[in-house]
Amino acid sequence: MKYKESGTGTTHRVWKLGKDIDTDLLAPGYVMKHGIEVIAKHCLESVRPEFSASVRPGDVVAAGPGFGIGSSREQAAQALARLGVAAVIAPSYGGLFFRNAFNVGLMLLTCAEAESLQEAERVEIRLGEPPAVAGADGRVLACDPIPDFLIDMARSGGLLNQLRKRMSPS
Amino acid sequence: MKYKESGTGTTHRVWKLGKDIDTDLLAPGYVMKHGIEVIAKHCLESVRPEFSASVRPGDVVAAGPGFGIGSSREQAAQALARLGVAAVIAPSYGGLFFRNAFNVGLMLLTCAEAESLQEAERVEIRLGEPPAVAGADGRVLACDPIPDFLIDMARSGGLLNQLRKRMSPS
Repeated sequence: MKYKESGTGTTHRVWKLGKDIDTDLLAPGYVMKHGIEVIAKHCLESVRPEFSASVRPGDVVAAGPGFGIGSSREQAAQALARLGVAAVIAPSYGGLFFRNAFNVGLMLLTCAEAESLQEAERVEIRLGEPPAVAGADGRVLACDPIPDFLIDMARSGGLLNQLRKRMSPS
Repeated sequence: MKYKESGTGTTHRVWKLGKDIDTDLLAPGYVMKHGIEVIAKHCLESVRPEFSASVRPGDVVAAGPGFGIGSSREQAAQALARLGVAAVIAPSYGGLFFRNAFNVGLMLLTCAEAESLQEAERVEIRLGEPPAVAGADGRVLACDPIPDFLIDMARSGGLLNQLRKRMSPS
């Protein structure tokens, strides 16, 4: 499990990005012929060259509006999931990215105040109803509700794993 | 089929709306206990009281950014689909709305210049690669690409119908 719910005290390190981080920044076109392992190494290299080498499983990305706009390439979300990013926190997302992200097991939190988060701040993710992000200084940023089936999908590691889990004899 | 592709000359009447049209405007909370037939009658009543009575199958909605933000209620997209709206054209969407819309058979076009469309203008929808909206005066507004499986999903009348179609013997 990549993130914990309210009350566990588990915190996540924030990588702060700007607005309109598009799918080409997440999964650059020139490496799209390679597998996700290679693509992930180039994730965000244009804006944060150190990202793929330094990000740690459980870290989160906080960004401005329009995260994941651009192409429909699923690898944009897969690259972040592959690097172990626990969640993205942004005010809005590209529609296709939003769809792809949960499908590949990446949790997205829609948070109007995402841009108030700071680089390297440690935050707690609370997947209650509604979800929220708690900052190091105790402030709590409300997020839009996420239906249970999508939370389960992200937790399960994506749509295919969720279906496998549901179809396997218990 | 609710819309036609490039070259057919089929045009669609535009209903022009503002930005941040949320799911509560599309499917008001106080009628959510009813079925989609009733909910659809109240669709957009706060901003366009005449909408549900006057909209015709094949009409399209053009709006500002943030269309469908708010709750995860699927009825917000279903209400538009039920009224025969052929497509929504907007610069950005709420992530959950984007997911729900194609699932229930509602086509969404992501179009940076959507707000340049005018009330009652007639437009042509071109589902090429990339898709575009052609205005009455000949101008062409580029839209973000939509993967084939989502175009097929919207055309099929949603995810369940698409699955039924795929699973039925040909």
